[in-house]
Amino acid sequence: MLCLGIDPGIGRVGFGFVKEEDSVLSSLTFGCIDTDPGLSVQDRLNLIYDELKSYIERTVPDVLAMERLFFGQNLTTAENVWQARGVILLVAAQKRLPIVELTPSEVKMAVCGYGRASKVQVQEMVRFLLSLKSVPKPDDAADALAVAIAGLSVWRLRRLQESI
Amino acid sequence: MLCLGIDPGIGRVGFGFVKEEDSVLSSLTFGCIDTDPGLSVQDRLNLIYDELKSYIERTVPDVLAMERLFFGQNLTTAENVWQARGVILLVAAQKRLPIVELTPSEVKMAVCGYGRASKVQVQEMVRFLLSLKSVPKPDDAADALAVAIAGLSVWRLRRLQESI
Repeated sequence: MLCLGIDPGIGRVGFGFVKEEDSVLSSLTFGCIDTDPGLSVQDRLNLIYDELKSYIERTVPDVLAMERLFFGQNLTTAENVWQARGVILLVAAQKRLPIVELTPSEVKMAVCGYGRASKVQVQEMVRFLLSLKSVPKPDDAADALAVAIAGLSVWRLRRLQESI
Repeated sequence: MLCLGIDPGIGRVGFGFVKEEDSVLSSLTFGCIDTDPGLSVQDRLNLIYDELKSYIERTVPDVLAMERLFFGQNLTTAENVWQARGVILLVAAQKRLPIVELTPSEVKMAVCGYGRASKVQVQEMVRFLLSLKSVPKPDDAADALAVAIAGLSVWRLRRLQESI
């Protein structure tokens, strides 16, 4: 089972492909799609669309996992992140990928067994679970890998429930 | 000059194509893209993408105008509208359409000459300016036509400024 985890944004979209085989997790590839702040919002969205589509076509995941967003007062940032999220959901629909949405505490729970784990704890567990030598960089890629790990466990449970 | 006005949403996207020729406005076509609430958000976004793309390919506008959104407390609705907006901006980028974004009061100002005009006043002016027999229905289509009319005047000014 292969899960693509996404940390959505307009300036940078973190992504990480995590594979689960015989209960062993490994990371196929991870990184970020960076968009030039000098571009218009629509051109940045277009870049995210093209890059993400190309990664999905090359790596063919079974499921896409993405964090649900919670914002406080900063609605201007939120607007663009939601717009990017719309484009990511569109790519998933076009590629017929099922989607798992997780809250930040669900991700922490799945990765660390504790819903209020710190960022550093999550990153260290990602490194450990994926048998990596060092914590993945940049942070957005590490976050995306955490989401992918959590996405896999939610997806496994969902499929078990459906088979009962 | 042909402007596509959009009233974004997840359940219903209003659209209206308004043409300006020798300072005379006319509506080419208008309506709504409705999405089934029973579908997942990603499938609704996919439907909006496909339909909008097909309308743009058939009618070939010069510019796309869309209202900027302002939300109060209802962030759940806002999230999906912003996600739909992301998909609409993506289609514009793919079709290389310039975008005019307008606040609700800019639309009212451009259509009625008064930034605090009522919905009914805006709709009546849309009917009058486009020489229609009755107010366009549904409301989302009428709103989209108002945005297209306002978009045309902003776009005309922007091009004048660029040519100075």
